Amino acid sequence: MSIIVQKYGGTSVADAARIINVARRIIAHRDAGHQMVAVVSAMGDTTDALLALAHQITDRPDERELDVLLSTGEIVSSTLVTMALHTLGVEAVSLSGLQAGIRTDSVHRKASIRAIDPKRMHQELDAGRIVIVAGFQGVTEALDVTTLGNRGGSDTTAVAVAAALKAARCEKYTDVDGLYTADPRIEPRARKLMDISYDEMLELASHGAGIIHPRAVELGQIYDQPILITSSLVESTGTLIHRETTMEPTNKVRAIAHDFNVAKITIRGVPDRPGIAATLFEPLAQAAISIDTIVQNASTENLTDLTFTVGKHDLRRTMETVEPLVREIGARDFVADDKLGKVSIVGTGMQNTPGYASQMFRALSDARINILLITTSEIRITCIIAEPQVVDAVRALHAAFALEQT
Amino acid sequence: MSIIVQKYGGTSVADAARIINVARRIIAHRDAGHQMVAVVSAMGDTTDALLALAHQITDRPDERELDVLLSTGEIVSSTLVTMALHTLGVEAVSLSGLQAGIRTDSVHRKASIRAIDPKRMHQELDAGRIVIVAGFQGVTEALDVTTLGNRGGSDTTAVAVAAALKAARCEKYTDVDGLYTADPRIEPRARKLMDISYDEMLELASHGAGIIHPRAVELGQIYDQPILITSSLVESTGTLIHRETTMEPTNKVRAIAHDFNVAKITIRGVPDRPGIAATLFEPLAQAAISIDTIVQNASTENLTDLTFTVGKHDLRRTMETVEPLVREIGARDFVADDKLGKVSIVGTGMQNTPGYASQMFRALSDARINILLITTSEIRITCIIAEPQVVDAVRALHAAFALEQT
Repeated sequence: MSIIVQKYGGTSVADAARIINVARRIIAHRDAGHQMVAVVSAMGDTTDALLALAHQITDRPDERELDVLLSTGEIVSSTLVTMALHTLGVEAVSLSGLQAGIRTDSVHRKASIRAIDPKRMHQELDAGRIVIVAGFQGVTEALDVTTLGNRGGSDTTAVAVAAALKAARCEKYTDVDGLYTADPRIEPRARKLMDISYDEMLELASHGAGIIHPRAVELGQIYDQPILITSSLVESTGTLIHRETTMEPTNKVRAIAHDFNVAKITIRGVPDRPGIAATLFEPLAQAAISIDTIVQNASTENLTDLTFTVGKHDLRRTMETVEPLVREIGARDFVADDKLGKVSIVGTGMQNTPGYASQMFRALSDARINILLITTSEIRITCIIAEPQVVDAVRALHAAFALEQT
Repeated sequence: MSIIVQKYGGTSVADAARIINVARRIIAHRDAGHQMVAVVSAMGDTTDALLALAHQITDRPDERELDVLLSTGEIVSSTLVTMALHTLGVEAVSLSGLQAGIRTDSVHRKASIRAIDPKRMHQELDAGRIVIVAGFQGVTEALDVTTLGNRGGSDTTAVAVAAALKAARCEKYTDVDGLYTADPRIEPRARKLMDISYDEMLELASHGAGIIHPRAVELGQIYDQPILITSSLVESTGTLIHRETTMEPTNKVRAIAHDFNVAKITIRGVPDRPGIAATLFEPLAQAAISIDTIVQNASTENLTDLTFTVGKHDLRRTMETVEPLVREIGARDFVADDKLGKVSIVGTGMQNTPGYASQMFRALSDARINILLITTSEIRITCIIAEPQVVDAVRALHAAFALEQT
């Protein structure tokens, strides 16, 4: 019997009625002949409520304690979904991260899964039960609770669990019915994609398509675990993320990604000598701050400017980490800007075809959008721009690359 | 360095301000030279809110799932108290029941502690940290979460943890400043007791003095673990529960206990043959329903009436369990009454002195209170009466035994 792992986000389990719906959906798949595992997020805005509770006590909650606190949100929803399955007459059991065998490293708030021991999950499945796993969490070797990083952590749980169970498919249920050529709330002419490669999805997810966490896609790619993005609200074929994708040779830009959540730090007057970058970025890595773009300007008079971007939520900690380092390396000062966003074009065909970059810059220029930073990968070009211009940029690029046409 | 284990209930950690107060109190004891462990309950009415959440999904939540759900309440408060200690500049760590090494049997909702492995707690204490333990919970051999029974479970955790750590003292903080000769909200002339024996406290706790869970007192007695009942709101010497108590030979009734939470079931026309009681009470024990009083009337024509009492919250399950048994044993029918309460007099000197029972019955009779059932132990006499008469009964007995006088 093949195993299907489903992932339900906070919106899908936000109240009792939706939880019953989730249970019905799980049962429908079981009745179609599958062994079922579902990974669930915390209900609605539970995580925010728990964070607010911590912030009533302290401005700077300890990260180990915060992990323990936040992990309760997913445990609550896992028990409620399990109870809903029981009322529908089906055997089911909830498992915490610990019980599901999810072992992580000790980087609190942003732990990485080291291994999954699927023994208990297999036992429960073989006993005829549906298994509901609390997402977003694992435990360290010392059995301390960790969480897998802001918001998207349950996606990672789902794909990792699917890989560990050698599941036929991992299905991620969201409030959209698949992946579009751009966010349809911003560009109404956006078109749904039937499938997409891991690489393309990874670039899109890393650059703001909030449908699935990039780490989850990366895991899917490593273990070749197909992931279906589909709707928990309407019946939909969804978008399948997998190794092979049906190419669309006439249009190599597949989709536009955007992100409103960009902060930029520039350290000015940095002495241009070896080891400076390591001195700067090692402490940031130790603080588990994800650096996105890094740009170093050409040196003039042995002084250079070094710019990098982080998520806005990490800006405060980043500044606190950077401040003593600026003095240590003898740089002049640093400035920060958190009113930024970014827009990206993504497609696997791009690297072999010239002209995409210039076409992108032209489209933004025609829309009177100033480009602050540019970064590229083999299958992506990203521009950092002012946050208020992100919406216009998405529309301009969607039109420029004619993405509304198949 | 001696270890003190403190227990804070839901009222003491109901909001951020009170949590900070709890943290201050813990630190004050640490500064006095003790290694500190605190066991905490869920905040305010969290447990009720979680129960309500479950009942939105189903009338009859699975008990294993309910345990997992409810255990999150204490985990949340344990992290918040720990964060509060951090903000006050003190090293601290929260531990779940699992991490604190609390192993239980598998009777969900009413688990018993089998053993405590204090290794992790000692490690943390020896590293200079204050340890905050989530009360009310443990894990089975299979690492499934269990809870220790309605409401008072965290008391049991605290005393068990104190015993396992060989603590100098277990301090239970409540909203009253000690144990009184009767509930002062009902009898304003009630007097605070300086100390009391385990046996007396056990009878009082079992019969409605809601200050500490009887199982906690029992554990204290087995391990000779002194327990101080004191106030989290005002400075107070409290009441010490311990082996030796300063006797008050002139008045052997120490205190009046009462309980509004009594339901009575009478099975009528029970064939009077051996094995009937076992047939009835074994299934109730398997359902983990606590039977309080059992009374069997003298047999007439080989038919007898069998009456027993349970907590009102257990009445529904009790009736469901009893119904098929009534048919099985060939009894006529059964009736239930959940509008009952009870009142008890307790004192270690009582068994050697005649006349206490008759004095009690006379006082109730003078107050026009009808006695429905009577049960006695060596140090207690209890009368089951109508719930609306409980308050009058407490006052009548307090006066009859002159408990306002030292």
